[in-house]
Amino acid sequence: MRDVSIIGIGQTPVGEHWDYALRHLALEAIRDAANDAHIDHADALFVGNMAGAQIGGQTNLGALIADFVGLRGIEAVTVEASSASGGAALRQAYLGVASGAFDFAIVVGVEKLTDAIGSAAVSAQLTATDSDYEAAHGVTPLSAAAMIMRRYMHEYDAVPQDFAAFSVNAHLNAINNPNAMYHNKITPEAFVKAPMIADPIGLFDAAPAADGAAAVVLAPTEWARSHRHDGSIRLAASAVATDAVAIHDRHDPLWLRAAELSVRKAYQQAEVSPQDVNLFELHDSCTILAAMTLEAAGFAQRGMGVTFAARGGIGRDGTIPLSTMGGLKGRGDAGGATGVYQIVEVVQQLRGCAGANQIAQARIGMAQNLGATGATAVTHILVRD
Amino acid sequence: MRDVSIIGIGQTPVGEHWDYALRHLALEAIRDAANDAHIDHADALFVGNMAGAQIGGQTNLGALIADFVGLRGIEAVTVEASSASGGAALRQAYLGVASGAFDFAIVVGVEKLTDAIGSAAVSAQLTATDSDYEAAHGVTPLSAAAMIMRRYMHEYDAVPQDFAAFSVNAHLNAINNPNAMYHNKITPEAFVKAPMIADPIGLFDAAPAADGAAAVVLAPTEWARSHRHDGSIRLAASAVATDAVAIHDRHDPLWLRAAELSVRKAYQQAEVSPQDVNLFELHDSCTILAAMTLEAAGFAQRGMGVTFAARGGIGRDGTIPLSTMGGLKGRGDAGGATGVYQIVEVVQQLRGCAGANQIAQARIGMAQNLGATGATAVTHILVRD
Repeated sequence: MRDVSIIGIGQTPVGEHWDYALRHLALEAIRDAANDAHIDHADALFVGNMAGAQIGGQTNLGALIADFVGLRGIEAVTVEASSASGGAALRQAYLGVASGAFDFAIVVGVEKLTDAIGSAAVSAQLTATDSDYEAAHGVTPLSAAAMIMRRYMHEYDAVPQDFAAFSVNAHLNAINNPNAMYHNKITPEAFVKAPMIADPIGLFDAAPAADGAAAVVLAPTEWARSHRHDGSIRLAASAVATDAVAIHDRHDPLWLRAAELSVRKAYQQAEVSPQDVNLFELHDSCTILAAMTLEAAGFAQRGMGVTFAARGGIGRDGTIPLSTMGGLKGRGDAGGATGVYQIVEVVQQLRGCAGANQIAQARIGMAQNLGATGATAVTHILVRD
Repeated sequence: MRDVSIIGIGQTPVGEHWDYALRHLALEAIRDAANDAHIDHADALFVGNMAGAQIGGQTNLGALIADFVGLRGIEAVTVEASSASGGAALRQAYLGVASGAFDFAIVVGVEKLTDAIGSAAVSAQLTATDSDYEAAHGVTPLSAAAMIMRRYMHEYDAVPQDFAAFSVNAHLNAINNPNAMYHNKITPEAFVKAPMIADPIGLFDAAPAADGAAAVVLAPTEWARSHRHDGSIRLAASAVATDAVAIHDRHDPLWLRAAELSVRKAYQQAEVSPQDVNLFELHDSCTILAAMTLEAAGFAQRGMGVTFAARGGIGRDGTIPLSTMGGLKGRGDAGGATGVYQIVEVVQQLRGCAGANQIAQARIGMAQNLGATGATAVTHILVRD
């Protein structure tokens, strides 16, 4: 396998983009990534998207976007793994470049979630849980997470306030990210007093559904080196693992098995261990998933994820800085685009271009994109050589 | 890149499977393919599906099916390119095995189209045309094909009866395929007299929407050889190309540019030319696409696709046997599963296991899966070494 590097990044602001079509959002991100990479062509396009059919009435986004951005004719396809679609699209592009089948691949994660409201939005969310055994009873990904959080609190004697640190940290970091949806601090007091969304998950606990697009350009590492490509960052590991979709089918509903499996494979491929990682963009669509991810990825003992965060382990000067550009909670959660936003943000950090949020001497960054409350986990480790 | 072979195949009958869930159909095909390959594990699963979200209310089929078939934990993802989803899923699995990232990959194409009727079915179809510029005006893939056929007839002075040979051939071959949806002959007279679906496309011209699942197992060719694996067939080429989704945006609505580009890449990779190909499973969702595919793939001159077929060029003893197990028209068109059915059928032929439909001395077979009236084209060339 050839080594693969990211040679360009692009993103739109995350928010409510009612005046932009989905293809326009993709175009903006791809244009910026191609300019950043100094390329005007690519061999293949991989689109990460989860709700284009249900909300936008459009399938075959690969061909549609390839044409719209001026790359008509190239290989293009859509990759879907619920909210892990962006990470999964990067994985497929990585395999293609690593195999030698093509040299320059563009990955775009793009989503418009705010075009649907009410029952249409809930219908789209319901497709991410097990249709026969969960969705049929009205279980959305968020209500599944709420049940997991309730059990976690019971088992480990925690209270909602213990989870506040994740959201406080995410919002603090989002303030300095011009592409983030929110630029306001929140306090632990506000976190606890916020209206309930799905008890015990409150308004300041869950990430907002949003629109946006993020893109990266991949090339062989050897090409990037021989062309002395500024700011290229090596993809040192790419790994996917899965678990049962239905929570009741998992061996242990309080353990993110797919997250653990994919992160283990990634550590092995990159030949690093948790203490080598300088920052971690994890899938904090709600705080319980952030806490359990810290445990699955080896940063905190089982049941200690919230304590680890509350004791300052996740801040920019903590043991493992999380959500350094705002995470899903502060930047916003643009569905199938989220996994690519995470990668763009890790590249910003490893290039030393993260502005006020820069992690000092960041050299190794990790991103993990979860689909459907952890049924799919995609982990990437990026390294500045 | 490593050479990749298909070491196992499986399929369910194509038809109306109202008593089976989508995951059950996938299980049957995967179980049969794994038994055929003599494996009890795989490293990765690639699901080809186009309408699971809209019709079945289920995304993240990768994780769902991996778990259901007893492969919980493995890498799994869904690949979508409209009706080319099955072929596109095979392409991704091929890249993964070719790269060396994993050894054993399962590809399953699975679809349940007949669970939706009336406006729900039309809504799902509409996602395959350009949502802003075609679907908004009610253009489905079939009505787009009807407009193309009308123009083709005008330009090349053809009449509907000229297209009959494709459907007559497909039904004739389907009779001997126990997994085909239809087992009845049709005549040119019946073809012309059939009720109109989308003028000039009649009932016996368009392939029926159906349910079904087909699966293949991939492994490195070297592994298949060193284990003297019976019936392994080498994937000598794998290629994807695209075109504009909206018909009015294409440079020439009477030319399948994506089909041409992908087939050219495939010929080059496999180092073969059209006359080397012993059989061709093409995307005959309606006869006009079959005719234009023959032209794009270099078997007939521009505008001569129908004449080529009418003169006996496509029969089992013709220049290039088409749809040898019934094609989309006779076997049935199970959406995102179709591209994998095509591959299964080519393998049957190259193994010499095609029964009464066996093409004598078949050694090189080609399959082409089209998405959204030719906006995406996936071509694979298979070789018995």
